Amino acid sequence: MEHNPILVIGAGPAGLEAARGAADLGYRALLVEKAPVLGGTPILADYAAITPNMENAEVAMKRMVDAVADDPLIDVRLETVVTAAEGDAPEINVTLSTPAGNEQMAVGSVIVCTGFQHFDPGRETQMYGYYEYDDVITLVDCERMLKAGSFVKPSNGETPKRVCFIQCVGSRDRQIGNFWCSKVCCGIACKEAIEIRQMVPDCQVFVFYIDMRMYGFWEDEIYWKAQDDHKVNFIRGIVTEITKRGDQVVIKGEDTTMGRPVEVPMDVVILSVGMEPSEGSTKMAEIFRMPLESHGFIETIGGALNTVTTSRPGCFAAGASTGPADLEDSISMAGAAVMKAAGFLRKHSLAASKSA
Amino acid sequence: MEHNPILVIGAGPAGLEAARGAADLGYRALLVEKAPVLGGTPILADYAAITPNMENAEVAMKRMVDAVADDPLIDVRLETVVTAAEGDAPEINVTLSTPAGNEQMAVGSVIVCTGFQHFDPGRETQMYGYYEYDDVITLVDCERMLKAGSFVKPSNGETPKRVCFIQCVGSRDRQIGNFWCSKVCCGIACKEAIEIRQMVPDCQVFVFYIDMRMYGFWEDEIYWKAQDDHKVNFIRGIVTEITKRGDQVVIKGEDTTMGRPVEVPMDVVILSVGMEPSEGSTKMAEIFRMPLESHGFIETIGGALNTVTTSRPGCFAAGASTGPADLEDSISMAGAAVMKAAGFLRKHSLAASKSA
Repeated sequence: MEHNPILVIGAGPAGLEAARGAADLGYRALLVEKAPVLGGTPILADYAAITPNMENAEVAMKRMVDAVADDPLIDVRLETVVTAAEGDAPEINVTLSTPAGNEQMAVGSVIVCTGFQHFDPGRETQMYGYYEYDDVITLVDCERMLKAGSFVKPSNGETPKRVCFIQCVGSRDRQIGNFWCSKVCCGIACKEAIEIRQMVPDCQVFVFYIDMRMYGFWEDEIYWKAQDDHKVNFIRGIVTEITKRGDQVVIKGEDTTMGRPVEVPMDVVILSVGMEPSEGSTKMAEIFRMPLESHGFIETIGGALNTVTTSRPGCFAAGASTGPADLEDSISMAGAAVMKAAGFLRKHSLAASKSA
Repeated sequence: MEHNPILVIGAGPAGLEAARGAADLGYRALLVEKAPVLGGTPILADYAAITPNMENAEVAMKRMVDAVADDPLIDVRLETVVTAAEGDAPEINVTLSTPAGNEQMAVGSVIVCTGFQHFDPGRETQMYGYYEYDDVITLVDCERMLKAGSFVKPSNGETPKRVCFIQCVGSRDRQIGNFWCSKVCCGIACKEAIEIRQMVPDCQVFVFYIDMRMYGFWEDEIYWKAQDDHKVNFIRGIVTEITKRGDQVVIKGEDTTMGRPVEVPMDVVILSVGMEPSEGSTKMAEIFRMPLESHGFIETIGGALNTVTTSRPGCFAAGASTGPADLEDSISMAGAAVMKAAGFLRKHSLAASKSA
């Protein structure tokens, strides 16, 4: 029996893996991406290298993009968003909206891979002066400079002598209501710290943190290397204020290990901004009537033992649309979601052929 | 075309999910488990509740076990180990050894779900006095008491007044060669701390840690609740020695936040032992000629963007056989591995029918 295609929404790492997996299992996939290119955040936000293994992000993502291109089972739609959905799986009628107009399609199952958005450090808190000082940037801005191959002080283009990362900006924060830990910022900050030390060997690099959450192999593969081989300085502390002095930014706070106040001028301050639910994730939850969990991400049901199933039959979610996720999470969840989506379609066609 | 079955080795959370998933996709699964029961470590080690959502572990695992029982596509073999393998996927001839004798079977693909083993705190380091003092126990021993519904001082059966957890025992440890962070011990210690506080409300509970790695939603769903609602005390510090004084054990070390030495008598000390490669994982790597990565777990290739594929075609690994993994990781990876294994078999039968 011919199934309706599996609709995969979002063509980042999770979405590309899901579409590829569906085709590998012999199911048609409809891969919908609102941007004009495939690859998702690693491409759209100009990531330099993939965490943790430091592979060039463009090379790594091109491999995934190439794997979905030209597969007769995968229908790729760029600059396309899902704007409406009616009916229940395995017969959901979706409206695809493109610059050229709207199209109706029937899909059998849905995998939402719409990811996250980076916390905007100018929103709700002005504490870090992100929009005020050119030399206060984010992990994302830093990544863009690293990719361009030139890490400089943004205000004057000079080579920085002293740089610091501030962890947990927009994460673990009761005041702004972002209660969660964003999971990957510790690893990404470490990775970028190493890359800065490699690119600008005379630049001192500091990381101000609450807990360094270098779980699993990140511990020795990134964190220890940052300390031992690249002499990155990790300071457990809280930064409470950033001000300007001459052409430097001054961070003020407390070194909680030494129990003393800190006031250090920096050439560049990098804010380790966390993950928030993306606009796309929120919209897809609404369109497909999938409830959000308490933090605002798409809710999966079944706790730790079922990571991708939503309360809407036939609708699955993978990666950072469901909460903070590293690349491994996104890829594994995408595979799991395809397995469930294909299993769902198979079960329904078996039931249909029995009753026929 | 009829495929050889997918061999799933190990019937813990990952293996049960993989076998279930294979059947959902219409593939036969051969589920091999060395123990006489299904369920893996949560059952064999008597887990009380699942982290993070505190569901009763027996109830949760029974749901997974029931889902594989009586499925005509799943051939369950208890008290069975794979002792040899010859040939290449999709035609690997494996030897299954049972108390009743050996059997040869042809399998098409392999998913190794042989998990981890808990670090033995008496091995290599005597520092914590695990085998010396009855009141020094592990996370696993504690879990067993919680499941039995009675948390007492093991040496005399009395109600403890003061209990502490020591994090990173057998993890993040250069001296013993376990370089990795075991990922889940922070969450499990928090969960057990809450359960002790609920079971013995007059007992003070302390957690000595280096970094509390409460990533994602564990931050507010477990860690904040432990502090706010259950008054668990978290102390950043290093414990260097455990001795005996009267009927208490005394921990000595340093509170690194306060910058002062600590010497506190405790009724029970709980060692948060980490994950190591299980004997089963090491053996399966050898039998199926899958290389180990530098920490001794089964190596997956492709970095963050391919979490379950090993260098041996058609052979996949999921969960803690590949490195420290939480339950979500194990379940997602199992789904991803089934997707890859089924895709592998499908690709081979398409190629075979083309050449036929």
